[in-house]
Amino acid sequence: MLFNHFIQFLQNTMAIPFPHFLGSDKTAMETGIRLSPSSPTTSLPAPPSPVILTQDELKKIAAYKAVEYVESGMVLGLGTGSTAKHAVNRIGELLRQGKLKNIIGIPTSKMTHEQAVSLGIPLSNLDSHPVVDLAIDGADEVDPYLNLVKGRGGSLLREKMVEGACRKFVVIVDESKLVKHLGGSGLAMPVEIVPFCWKFTAHRLQKLFEEAGCVAKLRTFGENEEPFVTDNKNYIVDLYFKKDIGNLKVASDAILRLAGVVEHGMFLDMATTVIVAGELGVTVKNK
Amino acid sequence: MLFNHFIQFLQNTMAIPFPHFLGSDKTAMETGIRLSPSSPTTSLPAPPSPVILTQDELKKIAAYKAVEYVESGMVLGLGTGSTAKHAVNRIGELLRQGKLKNIIGIPTSKMTHEQAVSLGIPLSNLDSHPVVDLAIDGADEVDPYLNLVKGRGGSLLREKMVEGACRKFVVIVDESKLVKHLGGSGLAMPVEIVPFCWKFTAHRLQKLFEEAGCVAKLRTFGENEEPFVTDNKNYIVDLYFKKDIGNLKVASDAILRLAGVVEHGMFLDMATTVIVAGELGVTVKNK
Repeated sequence: MLFNHFIQFLQNTMAIPFPHFLGSDKTAMETGIRLSPSSPTTSLPAPPSPVILTQDELKKIAAYKAVEYVESGMVLGLGTGSTAKHAVNRIGELLRQGKLKNIIGIPTSKMTHEQAVSLGIPLSNLDSHPVVDLAIDGADEVDPYLNLVKGRGGSLLREKMVEGACRKFVVIVDESKLVKHLGGSGLAMPVEIVPFCWKFTAHRLQKLFEEAGCVAKLRTFGENEEPFVTDNKNYIVDLYFKKDIGNLKVASDAILRLAGVVEHGMFLDMATTVIVAGELGVTVKNK
Repeated sequence: MLFNHFIQFLQNTMAIPFPHFLGSDKTAMETGIRLSPSSPTTSLPAPPSPVILTQDELKKIAAYKAVEYVESGMVLGLGTGSTAKHAVNRIGELLRQGKLKNIIGIPTSKMTHEQAVSLGIPLSNLDSHPVVDLAIDGADEVDPYLNLVKGRGGSLLREKMVEGACRKFVVIVDESKLVKHLGGSGLAMPVEIVPFCWKFTAHRLQKLFEEAGCVAKLRTFGENEEPFVTDNKNYIVDLYFKKDIGNLKVASDAILRLAGVVEHGMFLDMATTVIVAGELGVTVKNK
């Protein structure tokens, strides 16, 4: 796999520029690779052309890099979402090729369960395998201390259960997910709540972070704005903050103390490694 | 109502013996009233015979006493269980008699909802009435600081939501529910959890309180030992402790931090009044 060799060539501790994108069968246009407008036209050996990769390609680069941590015989937490999907596909590919053996996957959602089944990855669950060697999953936000926001895909609870049971938890993101503080992207910080009196709970959540200018919104889908229902038959309230919410552990406990809250999307002190794929290369951050 | 007059006669701050039990249409045998073996046989006026009341009669006494706190126009949290049932019946009775008016009930379970509907009590919910004037409910354990264990009936989550929204929370128990420390009765301290990988969560709960000799058991029902399912479609794990679990707030946060836990049955700093009916009388404890 050329793509894999390319990934292996990348340094672990600092960003390295991509000279070109080897892992795709697509044309430069299709992959979003653009020649630099200033690329030399002389006959001298041209320096590697800078490339601009699509967000999905960056996600794939991070995912493939993470799968290098996988060893035969491992119990693996399989993440959910557009980035984790690439990692699960890659694990399936390596199993088919015989480069990985005796893997047991623990899916973090019904969607990932289906994907893994379609790839022939043997599956189990936390009841049978309460200790997980390694989990690989995406994230919606990553702060400088490797704290995460997860769950914009709606699978935060099962992800937190599986990833909380892991020896190693490798997070894979494109660089757009890096934030100075959680909530800093201005996008949703999800909270899974019981459907019973959800308006009451949403109001209490909003009030909890009044000073941070919090707005709480029930997640809906479709034209009729039906409530989005999680794998656990609960609802999700998305919190949007105007300001930093301060001490994250205090915020976490305050949310969890509200009766009606099942779980929130802050994953504090859980990631052991974060792999960031950006325009200028891959960065690996270890806890 | 003779029964009510009798209750009003009881002191609020200390236990007063029951001279006899006026509120029952049953015979002495049926109500469990026993004449003292030493009752005088002379023609002198006999002192009041000591009575032994059934546990259900004690519950009823506490419940009727609590309903004295109810005023017309209140939004009322309606508890669940064998003790709260008496209070809800009594509220229905006073509404029918016109002695209470403009009551809005917020039931804490589907069961109480049905009971209240059958009694004609107007109902609402926390979404429409987020502030509750007064809630009346039973408890499974009461410690000297008025902390409670609730939820052996399985309604802990909705009870905690409603009772957490109350200005006043009056707890009604018979004296068998008084404990030196929560968990001290040796009976269950329930935790509501999501069904997904419940064994894993139960094991983590047990491990959390390993030093207190905790045993965690899934609550089941029927001959086939099917999992008991709450109103919110979750399971309940009952925790049994051999020793004191120590600081309750620390224990509470530790339980809530486990992904997979929805809520637990410790109600800390919530009760404002506890009414205890015992063989020797009624005691009212205020926070």
